[in-house]
Amino acid sequence: MTVVEYDGRIVVVDTGLMFPTAEMHGIDLVLPDFSYLRDRADDIEAIVLTHGHEDHVGALPYVLREIGIPPKIYGGLLTIGMVRSKLDEHKLGEKAPLQELPAGEKVKHGPFQLELVHLAHSIPDMRGVLITTELGSMLMTGDYKFDQTPVDGRPADVPRLAEIGRDGLLLLCGDSTNADRPGVAPSESSVGPALLQEFSRCEGRIVVTSFASNIHRVQQVIDAAVALDRKVALVGRSMRKNYNIASNLGMAKAPQGLFIQPREIEDFPDEKIVVISTGSQGEPLSALRRMANNDHRDVQLHSGDTVVFSATPVPGNERAVNETIDRIYEIGATVITAKDAPIHASGHGWQEELKLMLNLTKPRYVMPVHGDHKRLRLHSELAHDVGIDPANVFRGRNGLPLEIDENGARFGEDIHAGVMYVDGVNIGEPDDAALRDRREISADGIFIVVATVSSDDGSVVADPEVIFRGVAFLEEADALVEEMSDLIEDLLEDASKAGNREPHLIEEDLHDAVGKFVFQRLRRRPMILPVVVEV
Amino acid sequence: MTVVEYDGRIVVVDTGLMFPTAEMHGIDLVLPDFSYLRDRADDIEAIVLTHGHEDHVGALPYVLREIGIPPKIYGGLLTIGMVRSKLDEHKLGEKAPLQELPAGEKVKHGPFQLELVHLAHSIPDMRGVLITTELGSMLMTGDYKFDQTPVDGRPADVPRLAEIGRDGLLLLCGDSTNADRPGVAPSESSVGPALLQEFSRCEGRIVVTSFASNIHRVQQVIDAAVALDRKVALVGRSMRKNYNIASNLGMAKAPQGLFIQPREIEDFPDEKIVVISTGSQGEPLSALRRMANNDHRDVQLHSGDTVVFSATPVPGNERAVNETIDRIYEIGATVITAKDAPIHASGHGWQEELKLMLNLTKPRYVMPVHGDHKRLRLHSELAHDVGIDPANVFRGRNGLPLEIDENGARFGEDIHAGVMYVDGVNIGEPDDAALRDRREISADGIFIVVATVSSDDGSVVADPEVIFRGVAFLEEADALVEEMSDLIEDLLEDASKAGNREPHLIEEDLHDAVGKFVFQRLRRRPMILPVVVEV
Repeated sequence: MTVVEYDGRIVVVDTGLMFPTAEMHGIDLVLPDFSYLRDRADDIEAIVLTHGHEDHVGALPYVLREIGIPPKIYGGLLTIGMVRSKLDEHKLGEKAPLQELPAGEKVKHGPFQLELVHLAHSIPDMRGVLITTELGSMLMTGDYKFDQTPVDGRPADVPRLAEIGRDGLLLLCGDSTNADRPGVAPSESSVGPALLQEFSRCEGRIVVTSFASNIHRVQQVIDAAVALDRKVALVGRSMRKNYNIASNLGMAKAPQGLFIQPREIEDFPDEKIVVISTGSQGEPLSALRRMANNDHRDVQLHSGDTVVFSATPVPGNERAVNETIDRIYEIGATVITAKDAPIHASGHGWQEELKLMLNLTKPRYVMPVHGDHKRLRLHSELAHDVGIDPANVFRGRNGLPLEIDENGARFGEDIHAGVMYVDGVNIGEPDDAALRDRREISADGIFIVVATVSSDDGSVVADPEVIFRGVAFLEEADALVEEMSDLIEDLLEDASKAGNREPHLIEEDLHDAVGKFVFQRLRRRPMILPVVVEV
Repeated sequence: MTVVEYDGRIVVVDTGLMFPTAEMHGIDLVLPDFSYLRDRADDIEAIVLTHGHEDHVGALPYVLREIGIPPKIYGGLLTIGMVRSKLDEHKLGEKAPLQELPAGEKVKHGPFQLELVHLAHSIPDMRGVLITTELGSMLMTGDYKFDQTPVDGRPADVPRLAEIGRDGLLLLCGDSTNADRPGVAPSESSVGPALLQEFSRCEGRIVVTSFASNIHRVQQVIDAAVALDRKVALVGRSMRKNYNIASNLGMAKAPQGLFIQPREIEDFPDEKIVVISTGSQGEPLSALRRMANNDHRDVQLHSGDTVVFSATPVPGNERAVNETIDRIYEIGATVITAKDAPIHASGHGWQEELKLMLNLTKPRYVMPVHGDHKRLRLHSELAHDVGIDPANVFRGRNGLPLEIDENGARFGEDIHAGVMYVDGVNIGEPDDAALRDRREISADGIFIVVATVSSDDGSVVADPEVIFRGVAFLEEADALVEEMSDLIEDLLEDASKAGNREPHLIEEDLHDAVGKFVFQRLRRRPMILPVVVEV
């Protein structure tokens, strides 16, 4: 999510999200921290979306709900279609001023002129965003590659990029994802023939998994199935949803009668079936993961089936993907991955493409974006390689604004940025105490100690209750709890005799005494939660 | 861990462990479930260890403590040295009958004749285990490669393997780790020149990370440092420990004055330093991870430094390794991995080596071991390829015994096997309720409700206490708790009026009512823990 500001007015480019890691106990989603915009809702002229991937549009419902509805939300045709479906699910669809902005068309909003520039990516209708003010122009590339033979026949708009360079570009913010890969990314259309070749060797059913939003990939799987006279079943909610959106927009097509329902799969011979499924990242609840666990309602994998991973694991998902693959082998089916055959092509340009973008657009200033520190650095070095003055290349970070005026460009002062966590219906800070508590309890468990004392003299009026959860392998639990109860009663009696009646202080003493006792016995430090009830 | 049984007597080969994944909340170690041996301690003739890696020896202290001390524990010289150090830490060193068994020497124990066969691996003194009874011989390869130019000049003992094949081998249990890689693994000694070449380009300090037990790798780093006139600092506890063990056994050597203490690093020019560090897997508390987090006492990384990963991530560790690498880039240092230069060689043989092992030993039966389902299947197919009857290739799983007698071989009946978890001082089952509780609490938190009622009439004698932990972003907490208290009081009064005095039943009602209330408000299902105290 990028905020572009001029003369007090704002254009927001993209509103993406991240998915939580295992260390973020119970967190559902990770959003950009957009608190900078909280008091600036009235200054926002438009939100512009480069493409429909979750890491570029996923936070939009939360931005609209928390910040407010901007005058316009622009994007390409498919992007708007996918976002509309998402906002409908959040009951925001009617309010949101979604509008397709065709590539090349210019619109004015306050001090900004906005234009989308067509680029290629692993989802149709990817657009760079050209924002022009009286100071000059900046181009946010979004995620792109220069695919000379894209599946839809619409390569990146090199002529327009050349014009932008000729007219003078002030700032280029470029995708750095593959800044570490020398050469040029393979074309998306090279995947189709490789899929067909692999399919033609399969004797049983074929299950292909890919990102559901990669409409051109799904189309190529469909085409290969048609060529081999196999029926196609789309399995997984997002696979069906995205195909339907693309099909309604005329971006995906299949012959009449090709599709069958997942429940009909068993009615056809194995060699007549191609299943296209979600789950290429090993997601726990995905259709493919369920198949691998022998837990899918409609598709039971068996020996002779071939599962084709037409995707590579996003960093961090390797273990989940490997587990899925191995369970498929356990069932007796075979797996083909992008390591075995060229059945995947990245949607992000490689080094020669990043250099081409730099050479075409000839920016005065460059800010590499969308990559880890390694790739931002490598992207900067590519800019140096094509002759851009290192002093004009700015490697930033979230929350560090790049300020440009007539005198030059420089980093400004850090503003509050970072991430926010979504947990159920609530949004909050990553350092919320609740998450620290979850980490603590999930490591060592929790002991709850309830002491009931008289409000008159602090004497014990009921046996202490000791309850524990998440304390592992406690064979000697009864004896331990009994000893602990004695300890607690002694402590309460001492407190009563000493005239210590303050529940808060007694709770502190209980906390320390029980914690020490538990550590001596179990060598663990569970959370200790004492409750003193006065009667 | 493999149990070999004949005539009621037992030899155990290896006693390895696994490290926990993030889903095993708070678990320290994962052991093989060796409960099969609980009543069989007296039948154990010996434990034989193939090599000193944790996944082959790490469970030994637990086996000795839980099952008992066997008459003998055999292994190669370094293996025994490393295990002795480990058992000393567990205060078991004096009791354990550790003994080096030189390769080729035969010992008799009960119905077994035992012999170690020298093989190559990523740790010195790797030995296959040949076990002979009157029925025939079996060979457990352990982890091996056929390295023709190992660093210590001692390649795998091919002549002895050929003899074993000539004399007739009943069963081969072979390492399957790299059954998916065509060809032959690169030699360990190919790594040294590649390291020297990379080092010679470095202008600042060099930090090399590798597995501490890979003595030959550490030796090659030392040799490269000597060639470039750099001093060497060993950083990380296991790095220093393993080097000292190997050095004392004459397996590693360095010129006088080469080593410096980590705290002396700053006293030397950057270009005169090589640091050899633990942390190649991104382990959270490792020396390299601390350096990457700017949190190491002795080594502060800075721009100009080069960190060399002379190791590849074990599957599942990719994210931790990538995070470490990216933090090093953030600091401004450069990283070289095995993707950039041939600075790592696997210790496990590739397909041509597995076939060579099969052809040399000519086993009647084959059981591929040490690999996931995919690699066990591929290893089986390699056995078919070299002419072994598929009916004689047994793909097993943990707990499924392979039974061999004069009439042939077959799988027997499943015995109880699998894994056990170590949590602090205790060992238990993975399905322990405590771990389910940890998972539940770590996802959604916990609410504790304490109700104090009169034992006479069930009337409420103190305000209910509501405490929560791990419930995220609860801005409206006070109001929620107040409403909840009202709800609880109402429920308790109703119970009192209805004559319901059974604390257990009231707790059930409280659990359901509070859980429903919380879900309506927060859309989460935290654990609800009601406590009714009677006064």
